[in-house]
Amino acid sequence: MLALRVNKKRLSIKNIQKPDRADEALVRVLLSGICNTDLEIARGYAGFKGTIGHEFVGVVEESTDRSLAGRRVVGEINAGCGKCDLCRAGDSRHCASRTVLGIVGRDGAHAEFLQLPVENLLLVPDKIPDEHAVFTEPLAAACGILERVQIDASDRVAVIGDGKLGLLCAQVVALSGADMLLVGKHSSKLRIAERRGIETATPRQAAKRKRQFDVVVEASGAATGFGLALDLLRPRGQLVLKSTFHGKTELDAARIVVDEVSIVGSRCGRFTPALDLLNKAALDVDSLISEEYPLSNGLHAMRRAGTRGVLKVLLRP
Amino acid sequence: MLALRVNKKRLSIKNIQKPDRADEALVRVLLSGICNTDLEIARGYAGFKGTIGHEFVGVVEESTDRSLAGRRVVGEINAGCGKCDLCRAGDSRHCASRTVLGIVGRDGAHAEFLQLPVENLLLVPDKIPDEHAVFTEPLAAACGILERVQIDASDRVAVIGDGKLGLLCAQVVALSGADMLLVGKHSSKLRIAERRGIETATPRQAAKRKRQFDVVVEASGAATGFGLALDLLRPRGQLVLKSTFHGKTELDAARIVVDEVSIVGSRCGRFTPALDLLNKAALDVDSLISEEYPLSNGLHAMRRAGTRGVLKVLLRP
Repeated sequence: MLALRVNKKRLSIKNIQKPDRADEALVRVLLSGICNTDLEIARGYAGFKGTIGHEFVGVVEESTDRSLAGRRVVGEINAGCGKCDLCRAGDSRHCASRTVLGIVGRDGAHAEFLQLPVENLLLVPDKIPDEHAVFTEPLAAACGILERVQIDASDRVAVIGDGKLGLLCAQVVALSGADMLLVGKHSSKLRIAERRGIETATPRQAAKRKRQFDVVVEASGAATGFGLALDLLRPRGQLVLKSTFHGKTELDAARIVVDEVSIVGSRCGRFTPALDLLNKAALDVDSLISEEYPLSNGLHAMRRAGTRGVLKVLLRP
Repeated sequence: MLALRVNKKRLSIKNIQKPDRADEALVRVLLSGICNTDLEIARGYAGFKGTIGHEFVGVVEESTDRSLAGRRVVGEINAGCGKCDLCRAGDSRHCASRTVLGIVGRDGAHAEFLQLPVENLLLVPDKIPDEHAVFTEPLAAACGILERVQIDASDRVAVIGDGKLGLLCAQVVALSGADMLLVGKHSSKLRIAERRGIETATPRQAAKRKRQFDVVVEASGAATGFGLALDLLRPRGQLVLKSTFHGKTELDAARIVVDEVSIVGSRCGRFTPALDLLNKAALDVDSLISEEYPLSNGLHAMRRAGTRGVLKVLLRP
């Protein structure tokens, strides 16, 4: 089968063996999405070697759970050991021995087939088209913010970054009824949020609103975004770190102590709330799709995904 | 009156005018305590100019509230504008226009007299000797941890730093029934905690217990303490930043996102819980007092307070 592989910062489309672990479900990929993390992994982040990709919708081909065969599914990307306290409590997202689809020790979704434990799979309601279902993973990550901080209609929230993740985060937070400001540099991307009734600003405009926000979500992945996020936060406010920076950033500890702010890391979310939002068509994900390519054109697709102004790029095996 | 003053990194004992604002209470200082923040201010932190010191117990000499005259008091150090939303809600600790005793725009406690708004003063119960009451402010700062994170008997907590602040934090947290580990480099200081039944470890010993703690309190003021604190934290754990670092430290954002940890700043606490603990003699503060000097010997006292191995140094006007 075809797969988009990385090895020592080298990307290639390879013809490899179909996965064949009998204890896991075999999923035929219908559509996969390129995430910024894929681009980082291609640059060497996490030292991953193998098939990349962790956003997908597919059809179960083989499974120990016969009822799943032929059904359309998405899959949570963390596969735990099943034995530690965290896994036994039903949440393998922080299992110390976990593998992560296309990120840590497990081949990923930019391929004709992938494997995941049966318990990672969730059925996709018929109403959700493939092109929306493929957003379940990044949308779950956006919903994950609400697992980490409480946000309600009385809060003032800013999201920094108008990329795919920022646009999903802004839409999810806006559903809470909170006052939302999306901060970004690209008017065409900001317009997607504006059409949903979300207020937007450039970083320069936002910088005038120092100390006015209860929660700021950093989704730009830039160190400058982190600095702006701190500036916008009120004393005792919460800064949600949603994207990782390349390398290290400087931390002014005195600022954190004197203003008693919190910096809260947020990674993967649960899929159920995301599927629920997609089923209700509660957000605009169509506008986030920039381009689609056949998997065989994956190298070009990766270059496009890394091009300024391009949002989600999909791959179809 | 005598006062310990700083001006452009120069410390001196000066004879200055008694404070005379009619709208505030005049307090005769009985005893004041030297805090590490005083040492930092003497090195130029916060650009403060004037009388330093913010830990004290005193007697009210003059006040618009007659009932206070002659009474023994301690005083919350943040004096707000009284008009902003925060002040009107009864908490001036984050008022944007606040002055702070001996730290921001207000002469402090290493003097024969000081002034504070009447509403900042709290009566000291008779049972509490001056030598304990002078710990109200730093003990309140330790109690402030519990305003910022929830800690109960099921939690595993580490405090990094065996200085005055670390020893107070460890004792306060231990009262919650949580499993407590105090991490420090000085066996004589660790022994103070051990006598209270608190487990202790050197940084090297603690480093073997990676990812085992629900909450880690950084009270060492060293960048190495911050790194160790992150290492000890379990996924989704909370790192309480209790002391400021000199300058900036490096932040590995990926670490915070992947492990979904929180970094929580904590500064001033409320005085009431601290006075309550002192009244119950619930902690050992006697062992934290290293030396006492007359205020006139303040320069020597400051040098001693900055000497390795020395804990609290008190000044008596």
